[in-house]
Amino acid sequence: MNILAQDFSLIVWWLDMIGTFVFGLSGGMLAVRRQLDLFGVIVLATAAATAGGAIRDMAIGDQPAAVLRDPSYLIAACAAGLTAFLCHRLIERADKPVMLLDALGLGVFAVAGTSKALAFGLHPAAASLIGVMTAVGGGVVRDILVTEIPRVLREEIYAVAAVAGTLIVTLGAHLGWPPVVTASAGVTATFALRVLSVRLGLRIPRAR
Amino acid sequence: MNILAQDFSLIVWWLDMIGTFVFGLSGGMLAVRRQLDLFGVIVLATAAATAGGAIRDMAIGDQPAAVLRDPSYLIAACAAGLTAFLCHRLIERADKPVMLLDALGLGVFAVAGTSKALAFGLHPAAASLIGVMTAVGGGVVRDILVTEIPRVLREEIYAVAAVAGTLIVTLGAHLGWPPVVTASAGVTATFALRVLSVRLGLRIPRAR
Amino acid sequence: MNILAQDFSLIVWWLDMIGTFVFGLSGGMLAVRRQLDLFGVIVLATAAATAGGAIRDMAIGDQPAAVLRDPSYLIAACAAGLTAFLCHRLIERADKPVMLLDALGLGVFAVAGTSKALAFGLHPAAASLIGVMTAVGGGVVRDILVTEIPRVLREEIYAVAAVAGTLIVTLGAHLGWPPVVTASAGVTATFALRVLSVRLGLRIPRAR
Repeated sequence: MNILAQDFSLIVWWLDMIGTFVFGLSGGMLAVRRQLDLFGVIVLATAAATAGGAIRDMAIGDQPAAVLRDPSYLIAACAAGLTAFLCHRLIERADKPVMLLDALGLGVFAVAGTSKALAFGLHPAAASLIGVMTAVGGGVVRDILVTEIPRVLREEIYAVAAVAGTLIVTLGAHLGWPPVVTASAGVTATFALRVLSVRLGLRIPRAR
Repeated sequence: MNILAQDFSLIVWWLDMIGTFVFGLSGGMLAVRRQLDLFGVIVLATAAATAGGAIRDMAIGDQPAAVLRDPSYLIAACAAGLTAFLCHRLIERADKPVMLLDALGLGVFAVAGTSKALAFGLHPAAASLIGVMTAVGGGVVRDILVTEIPRVLREEIYAVAAVAGTLIVTLGAHLGWPPVVTASAGVTATFALRVLSVRLGLRIPRAR
Repeated sequence: MNILAQDFSLIVWWLDMIGTFVFGLSGGMLAVRRQLDLFGVIVLATAAATAGGAIRDMAIGDQPAAVLRDPSYLIAACAAGLTAFLCHRLIERADKPVMLLDALGLGVFAVAGTSKALAFGLHPAAASLIGVMTAVGGGVVRDILVTEIPRVLREEIYAVAAVAGTLIVTLGAHLGWPPVVTASAGVTATFALRVLSVRLGLRIPRAR
């Protein structure tokens, strides 16, 4: 049992690192496309990878923020920036794998953010808000830094997919599901909804 | 006396909800005008309605932020977004009532922010800064999210009206006025200054 | 020894005020150039002068933020805004002294931010991140408020110069140098690197 719990928290750590790296990659690629220099690429990668979690920790009052306590986040973010700088042509050709990894990162961060907020005693609606902010916050800061309207506001089912994951986490916590089940279900729901919406071109209605 | 105090805090809560709803409406209307989808409308409404108070709480160290503790804020903000999505034509025609409600929200948030900062032991200048940030912060985040220069920087007497309210609150606290009097005077001052400046087209000087 | 320590902390306070004033000037000048009114000039000056330190304090959990505890910061920031409003023509002609003061502010804020983060027990990489955020955060918020891509992302060796200062501070803390020596070396390194890079037109490579 103890071993299972350890395994689980190791899985969560690895998923967290994957999410950080993938979101860092998205920041780095945007910086390359906007022709920033190497340092700008690393800054934008770090912002995209860590801003969501940092805002979460400041809002719920878990300070110093996690990104300041565990150096792994910064290492993963800088590695992502460097990778984007060096391999941007390769990455640009790998459109589909990047989208899949991004959807995975979205799910991981939504689940991690919601779980942390619930652990801090927030009510379900607030925990869901925090989960969505964790998942999309990095992308929002990334886009604002280069004066683009955040992608999450512009198109497709992105934040809605994150919402699905956060709802499953709050439901699972309410019903007392084992953490591994809840987390897996949440990540899967966000991932599947995001990937399906891209494949099928699903949209949310706009006001006329 | 006790009953009076209860009545007062109920009034403050209702004013807070009105401010949240009205600022949410402003975010939702901007989102509709920029043709965001339903989810984007709700995101921008929530940001406009709650960012000012969230920044205030993070800066003074009252965490988890109030918006995360009392679900009413999120409900009011989402309701405002939905209202903007469904009734945007109606609202656009009601230019004047929206301006009046917005001026009321400005006054309420300026007074609430300043009072809270003073209760946390900040000196008057800091409390006034926090009051202004509470009142205009939501609008700043709203405009930045769609890459517009924040309206508070662009035109008319907006933040200045909020400053007037915050100064009255710090003055009232210094002179020991009853909270109901101080709050009413602060809201009234901000509201009147804002409405008058729109009516009379008052401007602040610019550098040549 | 005690007198030395007192002298040192007085020097740090004065350097902090110079940094605040100079960054406030940069915000005020940008606001004048974008034809904001007097209040907008003061808002942008205050944001540029204090946002870096405020973000630092929220991230590490030192609340209320320093800018809310010591009124001197707000006074220096407002004075800078007023100066920019009244004397913008004079200042525009004094290109070189402003650049030198800005480089000094960059060094002071990088050193102050890193030192504070280390004092809060953060590991060196996190302290360096906080130092850079303290030094460049105000400028980032300033530029975003008028929807420009932050200068720190666009050009020249700016954040890199700040990084140099933060590395020296973490090195000095590790090796047990006297605080005065560490701080002086850090400020000097950032200042010299920044000024030299402007003089010699040094650049960081971009991705092709």
